[in-house]
Amino acid sequence: MEIITLIDILGTISFAISGVLTAMNKRMDAFGILIIALITSIGGGTLRDVLIGKTPVTWMQDQVFPTVIFITAVFAVLFRSKLKYFRRSLFLFDTIGIGLYTVTGVQVSLAFGLDPLICVILGTVSACFGGVLRDILCNEIPIIFHKEIYATACIAGAAAYLVFIEFTMTQTLAMILSGAIIITIRILAVVFHWQLPRLYKKEVTS
Amino acid sequence: MEIITLIDILGTISFAISGVLTAMNKRMDAFGILIIALITSIGGGTLRDVLIGKTPVTWMQDQVFPTVIFITAVFAVLFRSKLKYFRRSLFLFDTIGIGLYTVTGVQVSLAFGLDPLICVILGTVSACFGGVLRDILCNEIPIIFHKEIYATACIAGAAAYLVFIEFTMTQTLAMILSGAIIITIRILAVVFHWQLPRLYKKEVTS
Amino acid sequence: MEIITLIDILGTISFAISGVLTAMNKRMDAFGILIIALITSIGGGTLRDVLIGKTPVTWMQDQVFPTVIFITAVFAVLFRSKLKYFRRSLFLFDTIGIGLYTVTGVQVSLAFGLDPLICVILGTVSACFGGVLRDILCNEIPIIFHKEIYATACIAGAAAYLVFIEFTMTQTLAMILSGAIIITIRILAVVFHWQLPRLYKKEVTS
Repeated sequence: MEIITLIDILGTISFAISGVLTAMNKRMDAFGILIIALITSIGGGTLRDVLIGKTPVTWMQDQVFPTVIFITAVFAVLFRSKLKYFRRSLFLFDTIGIGLYTVTGVQVSLAFGLDPLICVILGTVSACFGGVLRDILCNEIPIIFHKEIYATACIAGAAAYLVFIEFTMTQTLAMILSGAIIITIRILAVVFHWQLPRLYKKEVTS
Repeated sequence: MEIITLIDILGTISFAISGVLTAMNKRMDAFGILIIALITSIGGGTLRDVLIGKTPVTWMQDQVFPTVIFITAVFAVLFRSKLKYFRRSLFLFDTIGIGLYTVTGVQVSLAFGLDPLICVILGTVSACFGGVLRDILCNEIPIIFHKEIYATACIAGAAAYLVFIEFTMTQTLAMILSGAIIITIRILAVVFHWQLPRLYKKEVTS
Repeated sequence: MEIITLIDILGTISFAISGVLTAMNKRMDAFGILIIALITSIGGGTLRDVLIGKTPVTWMQDQVFPTVIFITAVFAVLFRSKLKYFRRSLFLFDTIGIGLYTVTGVQVSLAFGLDPLICVILGTVSACFGGVLRDILCNEIPIIFHKEIYATACIAGAAAYLVFIEFTMTQTLAMILSGAIIITIRILAVVFHWQLPRLYKKEVTS
């Protein structure tokens, strides 16, 4: 269980930093930066919890996560000029993070007795909607709606988890394998610049 | 009951298509289009359910609706150049859809023992807030806040439903009549270009 | 208890008016104005209730608040050219309002057995997120994320309330004192143009 807590915290940190960077890009003040960091980190799980009625929502049960996010936000602001040196680590944490959040999102949904398709949707929401809320609050069209393979990796991993569980694989093994699928797709997508098939004749740069 | 399910599905389809068109207008990728279609269709009912505490929210109880929306989104993308030929049918489905969603929204609220004014608000939210969420995610001011008689028709129909029920009309009859009121107002509003009274001296085109 | 109801209603009125002004600034129609007034007034408490699972959310228990907001919106639209004469009163009501909403938000959270840090966050959400939702619906970056000491006053007051309660002060006294802290910080911030420390080398006017 400890390794999962560690992944969770590393994922939270990298999500919080992505929030700080977006907020600073919009020249928000300290309060705005903190809120965006918080919402980026916990927004996806919060939305999932609200939709299924798991309240008070998960992050309220434990002061550790808000505290980690707060400390991360302070450090990220102070050392923002150094963040570029950690770009690769941050990408890695983020990627492992969405792997974890997707799978735990599916597990929570299964525990609520929801149908497979709904579990896949909620796993993806858990991993991706923190970023969606971040972009809405920063007055941008959510980046995952028009760039990069991101949610698609989560959908694939969530579906794989359900298949693995169906084949009576243990939870732990199913979790590791489907997490690995998400991480692999995401890394390959970034390395090889994968995108979803183009739907528009000439691409505009927005 | 079957006719209601049919109306519900036709309404869902026309809402999903309106989501696809808005998302493609913003040049979103396949994932973005799917999410916008989903949120346009189910966003209003979801918000109502979350506000009254009816969780897991309604669309999670049944995989039919997400599936219909998914198939609709795929077809709408593939045959987008043909959609204009169905414009009139889509408008009709949408209009019948908001009629149904308003009335069922009021019914759900009544079942939760809420006061009449709250029921009217929640009926309107059920019918209109899918479109509001669609516009927010596409980084637009919600269209129903500044154009067309749309929500106003829902408010009138929701209030009428409560009056009809008060006069000991049967649920079914009250539903048909108040649905008809919404549909009639909406169609007249579009045919005769009705708008809410102007509040500004010279109108700007935004 | 009556004085609290009065403060609550005055706060609601001033929040509703701020919603009306923002919506008219975006040239919304009557329906849009009403919705923005409603969401500005009740959005913060609603979000708090949804996050902790206190549903149906508070404003649905009592038709008084939607009614007050509706009447306020009508009057604000009719007498909008006169509103500037009440600017100072409106600022005062708003400021007393956020004091009250913060403290009651903390009290509700304590009643749900939540940890201190979470109570502070939820008190601040109760007071500030109506304005955040107003700005999102009007397609603006929320003003409290980049201007003025506003949320910061709420955070200070919420934390103070918890400290006072810890020191076995009575609820009423703790409420008055922490409310006074919020009001004082807010007024001083506006009078002396306090801002959070600058994080950017040269400030741009956005």
